[in-house]
Amino acid sequence: MFPVSFGSDNHSGVHPQVWEALRKADSGYCPAYGDDPLTLEVLARIETLFGGGCEACFVMTGTGANVVSLQNYVRSFHAVFCAATAHINVDECGAVQKFTQARLQVIDTPDGKLTPALIYPKLLNNRDQHHSQGRVVSITQSTEYGTLYSLEELQALAAFAHQNGMFLHIDGARLANAAAALNCSLQAMTKDIGADIVSLGGAKNGLLLGEAVVSFRPEFTADIRFYRKQCTQLFSKMRYIAAQFEAYLEGDLWRVNALHANAMAALLASRLAEIPQLRITQPVAVNSVYVILPRAITPALQERFHFYMWNEALNEVRLMCSYNTTPEMIAEFVQTLKDML
Amino acid sequence: MFPVSFGSDNHSGVHPQVWEALRKADSGYCPAYGDDPLTLEVLARIETLFGGGCEACFVMTGTGANVVSLQNYVRSFHAVFCAATAHINVDECGAVQKFTQARLQVIDTPDGKLTPALIYPKLLNNRDQHHSQGRVVSITQSTEYGTLYSLEELQALAAFAHQNGMFLHIDGARLANAAAALNCSLQAMTKDIGADIVSLGGAKNGLLLGEAVVSFRPEFTADIRFYRKQCTQLFSKMRYIAAQFEAYLEGDLWRVNALHANAMAALLASRLAEIPQLRITQPVAVNSVYVILPRAITPALQERFHFYMWNEALNEVRLMCSYNTTPEMIAEFVQTLKDML
Amino acid sequence: MFPVSFGSDNHSGVHPQVWEALRKADSGYCPAYGDDPLTLEVLARIETLFGGGCEACFVMTGTGANVVSLQNYVRSFHAVFCAATAHINVDECGAVQKFTQARLQVIDTPDGKLTPALIYPKLLNNRDQHHSQGRVVSITQSTEYGTLYSLEELQALAAFAHQNGMFLHIDGARLANAAAALNCSLQAMTKDIGADIVSLGGAKNGLLLGEAVVSFRPEFTADIRFYRKQCTQLFSKMRYIAAQFEAYLEGDLWRVNALHANAMAALLASRLAEIPQLRITQPVAVNSVYVILPRAITPALQERFHFYMWNEALNEVRLMCSYNTTPEMIAEFVQTLKDML
Amino acid sequence: MFPVSFGSDNHSGVHPQVWEALRKADSGYCPAYGDDPLTLEVLARIETLFGGGCEACFVMTGTGANVVSLQNYVRSFHAVFCAATAHINVDECGAVQKFTQARLQVIDTPDGKLTPALIYPKLLNNRDQHHSQGRVVSITQSTEYGTLYSLEELQALAAFAHQNGMFLHIDGARLANAAAALNCSLQAMTKDIGADIVSLGGAKNGLLLGEAVVSFRPEFTADIRFYRKQCTQLFSKMRYIAAQFEAYLEGDLWRVNALHANAMAALLASRLAEIPQLRITQPVAVNSVYVILPRAITPALQERFHFYMWNEALNEVRLMCSYNTTPEMIAEFVQTLKDML
Repeated sequence: MFPVSFGSDNHSGVHPQVWEALRKADSGYCPAYGDDPLTLEVLARIETLFGGGCEACFVMTGTGANVVSLQNYVRSFHAVFCAATAHINVDECGAVQKFTQARLQVIDTPDGKLTPALIYPKLLNNRDQHHSQGRVVSITQSTEYGTLYSLEELQALAAFAHQNGMFLHIDGARLANAAAALNCSLQAMTKDIGADIVSLGGAKNGLLLGEAVVSFRPEFTADIRFYRKQCTQLFSKMRYIAAQFEAYLEGDLWRVNALHANAMAALLASRLAEIPQLRITQPVAVNSVYVILPRAITPALQERFHFYMWNEALNEVRLMCSYNTTPEMIAEFVQTLKDML
Repeated sequence: MFPVSFGSDNHSGVHPQVWEALRKADSGYCPAYGDDPLTLEVLARIETLFGGGCEACFVMTGTGANVVSLQNYVRSFHAVFCAATAHINVDECGAVQKFTQARLQVIDTPDGKLTPALIYPKLLNNRDQHHSQGRVVSITQSTEYGTLYSLEELQALAAFAHQNGMFLHIDGARLANAAAALNCSLQAMTKDIGADIVSLGGAKNGLLLGEAVVSFRPEFTADIRFYRKQCTQLFSKMRYIAAQFEAYLEGDLWRVNALHANAMAALLASRLAEIPQLRITQPVAVNSVYVILPRAITPALQERFHFYMWNEALNEVRLMCSYNTTPEMIAEFVQTLKDML
Repeated sequence: MFPVSFGSDNHSGVHPQVWEALRKADSGYCPAYGDDPLTLEVLARIETLFGGGCEACFVMTGTGANVVSLQNYVRSFHAVFCAATAHINVDECGAVQKFTQARLQVIDTPDGKLTPALIYPKLLNNRDQHHSQGRVVSITQSTEYGTLYSLEELQALAAFAHQNGMFLHIDGARLANAAAALNCSLQAMTKDIGADIVSLGGAKNGLLLGEAVVSFRPEFTADIRFYRKQCTQLFSKMRYIAAQFEAYLEGDLWRVNALHANAMAALLASRLAEIPQLRITQPVAVNSVYVILPRAITPALQERFHFYMWNEALNEVRLMCSYNTTPEMIAEFVQTLKDML
Repeated sequence: MFPVSFGSDNHSGVHPQVWEALRKADSGYCPAYGDDPLTLEVLARIETLFGGGCEACFVMTGTGANVVSLQNYVRSFHAVFCAATAHINVDECGAVQKFTQARLQVIDTPDGKLTPALIYPKLLNNRDQHHSQGRVVSITQSTEYGTLYSLEELQALAAFAHQNGMFLHIDGARLANAAAALNCSLQAMTKDIGADIVSLGGAKNGLLLGEAVVSFRPEFTADIRFYRKQCTQLFSKMRYIAAQFEAYLEGDLWRVNALHANAMAALLASRLAEIPQLRITQPVAVNSVYVILPRAITPALQERFHFYMWNEALNEVRLMCSYNTTPEMIAEFVQTLKDML
């Protein structure tokens, strides 16, 4: 346990309103596996929030959300395009390949963002029996680099995917942060730009656990519940995820939390930018700051504050803010850093 | 939500002491994915409880516990022996096959219990390249039929497995109920009888979520953390599972809860046994009662109390008690039933 | 190498007309992987033989034919019904599970034949997310026990499968023997009875290698070429399978060979039936005879003739005839056996 | 069928000595699946050829050889390093991923050759549970670009792999061409440089079908026969692969054929080098020539001679020679090309 961590937004505890909702849900007996009225009701509210005509279900983890989402679209001879930095490529220990037996077609990017121009030369939809066939473009919004696709960029990717017989999947572990940063609705960033399946993360934005998967092509996801169960992502006491999402939707808590986390990262970045010995390496669009620290002070700083080395070669570190990061913590961090320099 | 459910032990809410522990854990920032001190400490306590010389880790669900446990031992050309009624065979939508690509060698049993004599004729360890090779005997203690292996039976199965080049896996979703019924320690029922890998369930006995996998052959489970992640069973905010298990171990809450659930089932069975129109079909060893009801009254009874039809052909139903079933609920259920007859 | 083998129909060499066709194909350069005119022409002839409106492709082995055929229909949450004695269950080392990640729902039968009545109690098409969903009924014609489905039985199985949202797959490793025994066309036994996908074996009936997979539901098998490649069943020098099938079709060599093998088994059975110390255990419908031998003479007999023990407990052996078994071999075998008794 | 093809070395027919051996093997009955004396004897000769202390087995196809070889070493959480141009990456429709559920870690190279320096920055052996762990370095000798690893380069790669807890796999579809070009023994290029598992291709060098997999670490490949069967690569009439390899070894036919194919490519390259409008893009080390043709004449040339476009953007084509390419064919090709210019 740390007094302060910039290590990850999942280092924070559970938001008080989420606790309250959990306790409220904790009365009496309740059917398991999502057959309870609260789950049905909250899923319906999520579907409305994403613009309707879609189908939502709950899973337990972000990796689970990605695996369950992609499995609906890919057979073993398909390929999924993703950025080299994508969570499904680097941080899930091969879960997508394990589960789907399909391949990831990995694309290098400067900023974690795919574009039609980057994908086009690697298109694999020629129906040649020797080649895996491109099937899904999978992006993360906001990205693992804390960068952001604009609505226009999203629309272009969806159109490109569809024109080439593919689908657009959005890993939305930090979809809330993206919507907050773009000041748009969840619908605008998903249904309206033409996404086929997306997730809305909870654990990185104040929940104990739980993610929602939202499918805009129910005709392709009719079997999603089977895949969720096979993937060990079916939670027995589902009411406790539903209750958390109820709180998450109430007063747009998801946006409130995300706005705060984003604002804290902006504050942190602005303070760090004033220090000439540092270099911020990525635009600070949401709740993380990538910065190159002087190598000499890094270990001492890590003893005081928790954060992760991102690129050993550059001594680039990732500083991540969350819904309960405070300006005081940032001030303390910046002051400590300055003192060390 | 129901006033009373005999549907499943996972229809109950979270035990008050578990809530308390959850709230206590909810302060400050904490590393994710099990790298926090609380997780390490509670895992060490679990290892002690199971007799030491073992390695424990947490997973999120019972299906996850089975998949992660078995994957360490099976390659795709292996077979896992299990009872036809085993959870891994009927209730996990093929998760074990999906994940391991191995096969289940399913054996019919009268009571959900495997024996060496039942397995022997189907042994597959001849090294013939055309045949899947038997590798694991997987049992559930207590079984899906609410029956119980004695310590002698467990020992005989472990010895049989080992003599034939196989391993013994115990699905312990209700291991607490079994230990309570046998009035023995967890160690006596697992390490001491020669089990190779077991799980200790939580969600069916008062936790919000969480199961512990305990390996007695660390040399075979060195990669278990990779399989856990690939299987989407790595929980980010692990402290919240650790905290629950801390409460679960405190004052042997796991045993207290299980004893209560077992006692309620015994009470229920004794009351039902007095009603001549009913027939109890399985010995009531732990917390469930299988009983054949008169077909005519079943729908009306199900409107008042939640429980599941087990065998449509026989009109056999399953009545399950949990840590917070009360004698009053049982009295009310029995009275209603009597009134309907 | 043996002077005589009743071990398997794949112990025989290659039929002379097949050799001739192989040599004829061996001139000049030829595109690989099936893009050559001979392959296209022979596949078209096979499609005609099966009644048209179907799509044929070549694979290399019988196990390959089963895996490639089933993969088109099953996702990982599906189940394939098969007899406990089915080749896909006992003799393919779990290849179907490995490849499809789906499960086999194995059914005990007295004679290797499935029936609607045997499957019905195990139907799994309830859309319950906890259960693998029944998707394919897979049968072997003729069966691994040398028994035979009548056209009426086949029709009933296909109808049953379709009424329950499933498909009928026929493992036709010995489809030729079955058509010969039923004195019907290949079309009558496949397309006309409502089969969805079948194979026509070659290696057990005089070819060097090669099987044809014939799909009667091209809308479900549009991706079969990708699965064939992924399954390592795409042969580079395809013309050499095509040439063999050309010879196989010429003058109905497939039927001529099968009729001969069947006749030899009938002759063998009739001679063995005259010996009171023996017991023939299965009806001799095609080219194998299952017979219980006196235990004492079996080893000595196996030194003279190659054949396999089928059931150690009963001392039941399998005697298999092929396209080039001769009456003299049978006479010699029977005489030797008599001499030993 | 073409009068002349430079499309691939598998466009050629079967070598006359191989035919002869096939016919010689075609007498009498023979046990299937490799249990025949010829198979055992030829495998023993192959093991001797590779320096002994190894174990060889036959598979049917090159893709099969790769899948069966790699499966012994990788679990689903492992990664296999390979060049972006590797056959396992681009030409097997994802068979390795399908079969092993592991991932390919793909590395861009200028010439199809991996080096320690290229792999080093992507090493994945940190035992972090979030990341697939590097396990095998897989190379192709000679490469898909017709380039060649020197013995020193091979040794360096093996040493690098072993120092980092990994294994070296060599896809030897054209291992014969490489040994011919390096003028070394098969042992020198495999066992002596420290390779762990390799294949020796046949179909691209005059055989009808068949590849040998040779394991230098039998302790890691004890289960290879099970994987071969599961992978549908177990040939029933194995004597016909053994017989071909017998011919292949006789008088080093494998080397004779490969030397010829290499010499023809050298001749072709030297003639093409004289034509100023062309540009040869890769060193011609074995039996292929990569050359950029004038775009205008390509279609007309492809009507006369069969060959494949390699890089559409550059109009780079691949010209491949085989054991039965003749100087006359090359002269004719070059003359036609000159006439068109």
